[in-house]
Amino acid sequence: MTVHSTWKEKVQLKKDQLNSKIKDEWKLNSATITRLKNDKKNLIKNIDDLCSSSENQITHSTIMALRQALEAKELSCHEITAAFCHRAALIHQVVNCLSEIMFSEALRLADYYDSNRPAILPPLYGIPISLKDQCNVEGVDTSLGYLCRTFKPKTKNEESLIVSFLRDLGAIIFVKTTVPSSMMATDTQSNTFGYTYNSINLSFSSGGSSGGEGSLIGAHGSLLGLGTDIGGSIRVPSSYQGLFGLKPTFGRVPYLRVDNSFEGRETIPSVIGPLARDLSDLRYFMSCVINICQPWVQDVKCIPYHFDSSTSKLHDNYVVGIWYGDGVIDPPPSDIRALKTCEDLVNKTKGMKAVKWEPSSELSRELFDLANEADVADSGNEIKNEFEISGEPLLDILKPMVLENGRPPYTVNEWWDLTKRVYNAQQLMRDYYLSFPESERPDVIISPTALMPFRPGDMLKTTLRYILLFNVLNFPSLSIPVGSVDCQIDGLMDTTSALNPEDKMIKTYWNDLIQSGEIDGFPIGLQVVSPTFNDNEVCKFASWLFSKI
Amino acid sequence: MTVHSTWKEKVQLKKDQLNSKIKDEWKLNSATITRLKNDKKNLIKNIDDLCSSSENQITHSTIMALRQALEAKELSCHEITAAFCHRAALIHQVVNCLSEIMFSEALRLADYYDSNRPAILPPLYGIPISLKDQCNVEGVDTSLGYLCRTFKPKTKNEESLIVSFLRDLGAIIFVKTTVPSSMMATDTQSNTFGYTYNSINLSFSSGGSSGGEGSLIGAHGSLLGLGTDIGGSIRVPSSYQGLFGLKPTFGRVPYLRVDNSFEGRETIPSVIGPLARDLSDLRYFMSCVINICQPWVQDVKCIPYHFDSSTSKLHDNYVVGIWYGDGVIDPPPSDIRALKTCEDLVNKTKGMKAVKWEPSSELSRELFDLANEADVADSGNEIKNEFEISGEPLLDILKPMVLENGRPPYTVNEWWDLTKRVYNAQQLMRDYYLSFPESERPDVIISPTALMPFRPGDMLKTTLRYILLFNVLNFPSLSIPVGSVDCQIDGLMDTTSALNPEDKMIKTYWNDLIQSGEIDGFPIGLQVVSPTFNDNEVCKFASWLFSKI
Repeated sequence: MTVHSTWKEKVQLKKDQLNSKIKDEWKLNSATITRLKNDKKNLIKNIDDLCSSSENQITHSTIMALRQALEAKELSCHEITAAFCHRAALIHQVVNCLSEIMFSEALRLADYYDSNRPAILPPLYGIPISLKDQCNVEGVDTSLGYLCRTFKPKTKNEESLIVSFLRDLGAIIFVKTTVPSSMMATDTQSNTFGYTYNSINLSFSSGGSSGGEGSLIGAHGSLLGLGTDIGGSIRVPSSYQGLFGLKPTFGRVPYLRVDNSFEGRETIPSVIGPLARDLSDLRYFMSCVINICQPWVQDVKCIPYHFDSSTSKLHDNYVVGIWYGDGVIDPPPSDIRALKTCEDLVNKTKGMKAVKWEPSSELSRELFDLANEADVADSGNEIKNEFEISGEPLLDILKPMVLENGRPPYTVNEWWDLTKRVYNAQQLMRDYYLSFPESERPDVIISPTALMPFRPGDMLKTTLRYILLFNVLNFPSLSIPVGSVDCQIDGLMDTTSALNPEDKMIKTYWNDLIQSGEIDGFPIGLQVVSPTFNDNEVCKFASWLFSKI
Repeated sequence: MTVHSTWKEKVQLKKDQLNSKIKDEWKLNSATITRLKNDKKNLIKNIDDLCSSSENQITHSTIMALRQALEAKELSCHEITAAFCHRAALIHQVVNCLSEIMFSEALRLADYYDSNRPAILPPLYGIPISLKDQCNVEGVDTSLGYLCRTFKPKTKNEESLIVSFLRDLGAIIFVKTTVPSSMMATDTQSNTFGYTYNSINLSFSSGGSSGGEGSLIGAHGSLLGLGTDIGGSIRVPSSYQGLFGLKPTFGRVPYLRVDNSFEGRETIPSVIGPLARDLSDLRYFMSCVINICQPWVQDVKCIPYHFDSSTSKLHDNYVVGIWYGDGVIDPPPSDIRALKTCEDLVNKTKGMKAVKWEPSSELSRELFDLANEADVADSGNEIKNEFEISGEPLLDILKPMVLENGRPPYTVNEWWDLTKRVYNAQQLMRDYYLSFPESERPDVIISPTALMPFRPGDMLKTTLRYILLFNVLNFPSLSIPVGSVDCQIDGLMDTTSALNPEDKMIKTYWNDLIQSGEIDGFPIGLQVVSPTFNDNEVCKFASWLFSKI
């Protein structure tokens, strides 16, 4: 048996294990799968057609509404859980979004809850929650898309703190979702689990690295799930699937015992946060996890701040910064149109004011460069090692991370220098922020997220330039859906006036998407952002904004 | 001219520059200096004798009292500033504690304040404040004890944020104080500035790295100064000179534009905080800097938490952990006696309870090892380079930092591993903390600080084992004076029952100090400590404790 056949066999074993967790009556025949895969823009409707009307009612609902129905005993935990398990199984067979399936454990817990119903229901009682693969759950793998980490189920003691919180809150964990191997890509793919497609438009990537979450929630296979974000991994899939996704300030949601790449790298850290269909659900979730579970008691990295989910009332004289572009890569016409909609709305609201947010191109470049530099500081050592253990071949999307030029990993002095540059860049942005007169200083900023979707294989890191800088800055950032691309309205970009070769490449790519019509109807995602610790402000403003759009 | 003579000449130039800032009538003749140096335990009294009674009244006062006198116009800013400048000059000539002298600038500002007195006095109006050399002040060097950094005065734009805060608050900056080259030692010495002696007992080290501050404030040459602490650098000098010294949680007092070694090293970071004679002064200072200046607005590393200095009232059912030893190195009898005093006081107070704080020896060792490992992660590269630039010889106290075994600096992967171990150790301590039933979980812990003073040249890093771990843990820690060593009462330690060879060495050293009588009357320092962010609790409890002792 060659090494090559060994890793392939192991992949097949893992696929079989996953497949065996879906009961036969939920399995689609290959003709149906092919039909659904080819009907690229109608997955939600097609899945609806495969589910009962009561299942559709449940999966198209919100956490808040399901909770009311549970309280009123109009629905049981079993009905809710079964509806989501069924739908997740169907979606998965088309878009390939699940890495671990826990349907039977979930249904068993739901049944237990139904027959042991407490007088006062815990905050997330009977609500199914999906988890990005990184979260450790007893009895199942955390493979991070690495074959070498499969078939090593986690023990009770290894469970992520956030998982034990979810259990305490009464939530029902039913699936874990796919990631690109290492999570260091915004396209979700691995040798073990294959490629995760966008559930809104199967021509495109689900984004990443929380791509499985984005795709699953996008097609109503879950109402809320947990993702992580070191360089857009919550916001890109949210944006690509028309969801709300919060990258909180570091230390709001506990990362304790959540497996990760580059553990111990604290410069530009990964953060964990929710992706959700509904913003009220997202805020409710945050307040449960933070205010009730008080993560700072157990995780020393968490900050003892409460989360205010009570209101959408804004203070008077609200100032909103609008970021139309960084002068390096122009956002596409759809983003500009969405930003203008927000600006107009703000300006016509009494007491509010929109201002231009225009940090210098140099600073924007430096922040982008720092994020990229940090990601390859170890020359890809860790990723390379993980692949070598199992003998699986390195993925194309990760090749830019594994430097073949023989540059040794950074020394500790080089790493400290980079960390110092991060602080300097953060301070330069602070200086820019403080350069606004107080009456014009933005409470929040509205910015593009990922500039445009890409087809499998087309991942363009430069489309992340409005994303990565907010990781370097540790600014809380909420991805929000603001309408969708309209090929007629949004149209082509002028490549002759491109700012630079990269800008030209992006504009050419956009024009291709417009001309083919593939992008028509694709969700437009923007971000609501604010300086570190202003997570409440970001969510509150977004609730207000979304109620008006 | 050889390189050797070059560096010596430059040292002389710097010494001459410093000396020229002391006016002639404040200069002591060599006979007086010798007399004062030989009368090792009476510096305060001897300096008192050289000052006027009104000067002594001022320098033996507190910030709060001086502020009242200023408000009542019983004293002028000039009188106060002149008294401290004079006294600092005298102390310096005996213990060698100043690196930069700004007497004329200070007096000029004091005069300006006197002739432009505002209706409402700013919070630190007319109060002289001393600064550890690391703080950047316009027009003067920040040499960090490195010759290569002398004669490079800082510009206005380079001023530390904390310095501009002090100016805003009305404080008068009058001196900067000595540090060991690099600050990575608890003994204060450099080729440029020489050795800084303990001002309470000149047989001993002033401690370090904020040794100049400790020695100056110890002899009433300043009421409050700023130090930094990456491994005891505030608490050791405080403890050695009978002062209060607060190592806050990281991010309470702004470090922005304070020069440092290992800039960009964020694992086990250096923090900045006050050393003071009076605890109310220290708390007042903290509340001014935090609540009024709001450092988080300008320094992105600062956390938006207010500081409560209003009261010493403790909640009911106060639990106090007492740490009698880590099972690796026994604290000396004087510490045990001081700890017992605290325990008895707590136990006889209604509503309070003392419990034993006894984390495992393994954890204690790991925390100590991590701190030491982090300090040599770059194999001493940075320190070596700084010495080589000027050609000055490496100091003996720094030789353990500069590894001669050819081990290369850590790679970034090795550094991340260390950072991960730090987090793991922090969590193990959190687990230990949470293992107490809630009614017995300590609100604060009382611990030894530096175990005993050392003579010049005798620095023993192992005496820092009750110090370093609180840096690794990022626990706020306040060094407090609790009586003094009494050779009769405290006596010898039993070396035959030593826990290990290092413990035996420490016990033998202690016995030597007792037998020689040198240590008699030396201040005993303890620490009041609490988990991260509990800075208020630490100060409040210490105020209560100190009012009872």
